[in-house]
This record gives sequence, structure tokens and C-alpha cells, in this order.
Amino acid sequence: MTMPLDSESRIQDDDHLALKLWLRMLTCTNMVENSLRRKLRESFQSTLPRFDLLAQLYRHPEDLTMGELSSLMMVSAGNVTALVGQLEKEGLVKRTPLKTDRRIYQVKLTARGRKHFSEMAQAHELWVAEMFKAVGHDGMEELMRDLGKLKEGLRAAEG
Amino acid sequence: MTMPLDSESRIQDDDHLALKLWLRMLTCTNMVENSLRRKLRESFQSTLPRFDLLAQLYRHPEDLTMGELSSLMMVSAGNVTALVGQLEKEGLVKRTPLKTDRRIYQVKLTARGRKHFSEMAQAHELWVAEMFKAVGHDGMEELMRDLGKLKEGLRAAEG
Repeated sequence: MTMPLDSESRIQDDDHLALKLWLRMLTCTNMVENSLRRKLRESFQSTLPRFDLLAQLYRHPEDLTMGELSSLMMVSAGNVTALVGQLEKEGLVKRTPLKTDRRIYQVKLTARGRKHFSEMAQAHELWVAEMFKAVGHDGMEELMRDLGKLKEGLRAAEG
Repeated sequence: MTMPLDSESRIQDDDHLALKLWLRMLTCTNMVENSLRRKLRESFQSTLPRFDLLAQLYRHPEDLTMGELSSLMMVSAGNVTALVGQLEKEGLVKRTPLKTDRRIYQVKLTARGRKHFSEMAQAHELWVAEMFKAVGHDGMEELMRDLGKLKEGLRAAEG
């Protein structure tokens, strides 16, 4: 395989570029997340884990078991149990034991939980849109495509 | 201001695009972070917080006080104290009280800590380069530029 004379420095440059890019991506992700965390607290006295849990229940209107909910959330079963307990007290979700095995609980949104989540989700979408406005439509399309390649590559590497 | 007839649907489309983009970015960031976490553990029996702490000391060869180190790390002072204690036991960092105020400690890398960090940092850079390879050189340039716009916008919004 023939290589241009400066292939090694080009490879090193790309390695540095990848590292700089990763640090920038990490910074941006943390900034967006911190901003969303603050806005959820200020506008809804809520948190990201609560929002994520309600989002999972909203997306899966068929009743989820606590175990299914945990695996969707990628947090520990203990944390999910605590969150669900708190949300149930506030009347936003309801737990019901399975008829076939009363040790297993199913969870679903109550009507009030559904309404509360809809309001948060609408605000959340507007906040995100506002934060990405500076990127512009074409920039967002580029990011979607390039991050799509990154995701594909990471999936392939995970096997 | 005249607007095309479909301006409202275009705005809604961009709002949805921003949300999809944010979820993709969050997924990618989590995937990269999890992969780095696993590799640090497998290759160096280390963790991301340890790596970040050593990186801060490496970048600031003048002695940092524990307080300065905490503020650079954006984690709680208690966590930094625990990490530093652990790294000192392993001979990777050294704490010395200030001559002018012996309640304040300065921290620096030992020679062994510097060598250990260099090895990890080199491996870390290669892992990141490998993970971003699928994006390609031009894609990485695009990401740098578009994420740069995002960061600027977020900074401006934070005031």
C-alpha cells in the first residue's frame, strides 16, 4: 500500500482532532444537560430521571413491569423503585400486581401523569430547539448525519 | 416580515429535528463514555474520575490546592478528597501543606503518577481516534464547526 509521505503526521493530526472533538462534544452534552436539569427544576420542580421515567411510560402505554422499566432506563432497579414510589405518591403513576404472579408489579401513567408529562415534554422540546437554534437547519442536518456515522461505528465496534 | 406559507410547519420540523439530534448526541456521548470507562478499567484498572483528576494535575504542573483542583473537576470537594487520598496511597500523587497556611494542601503528580498518566492518556487518545474513525476527516471537521456553534449559542444563553 502506497501512502503519501506525510501519512503519519496526518494520522496524528486526525487523532488529535478526534480527541478535541470528543472533548467539545462532551462539553456541549454536559451544558445542554445542565441547562435542561435547571429548566425542569425551575418550571416543573422536576428532575431528569423523573422526566426520563415518565417518558418511558408514555412511550409504552401497554403496562410495563418494574423490571422492563428498569432495563429501559439503564439505571439500577433500586433507583427505579424509589422513583416510582415517589411518583405514585404524587398520583402520577400507578402500580398494580400481575394477576398471574402477584410478586411482579406493572406500572402505568395515571391520567394526571400523562397530562403532566405532556406539558413537560412540550416545554422540553422547545428548550432543546432554542438551544440548537444557533446551529441552523443545515448544521443540524450535518450533525445528524455525522453523529449517525459515529453511532453506527460504535455499534459495529461493540459487536 | 414576509414568511413562506409553510413557515410554521418548517419551524415545527426544525423543533423535532433538534430533539432527535439532541437524543442522538446524548446516545453517542453515553456510548463513547461507557466504552472509555470499560477500556480504562480493563487496561489500567482505572476509572474516568481518576483519569480526569490526573489529567488536571498533568495540565497544571504548578502545585494546585485541593480547592483549585475541586473547582477544575466540577465534582464535590468530598469526592476529590477521597480520590486524592486513594491516589496518594498508590504513590501517584503527593499532598503537601502550604508553608504559609498549613491547613491548605497542595497536590501534585509524583514521577510515577506522571508516567502512569502519560500511558493512560496515550491509550485514551488512540481509543477516541478509533471510535471516531467512522466519521472520517471531513465529518470530524464538520462536527467541530457545528458543535462550536452550539457551544457559542449555549454560552451566550447562559449570559
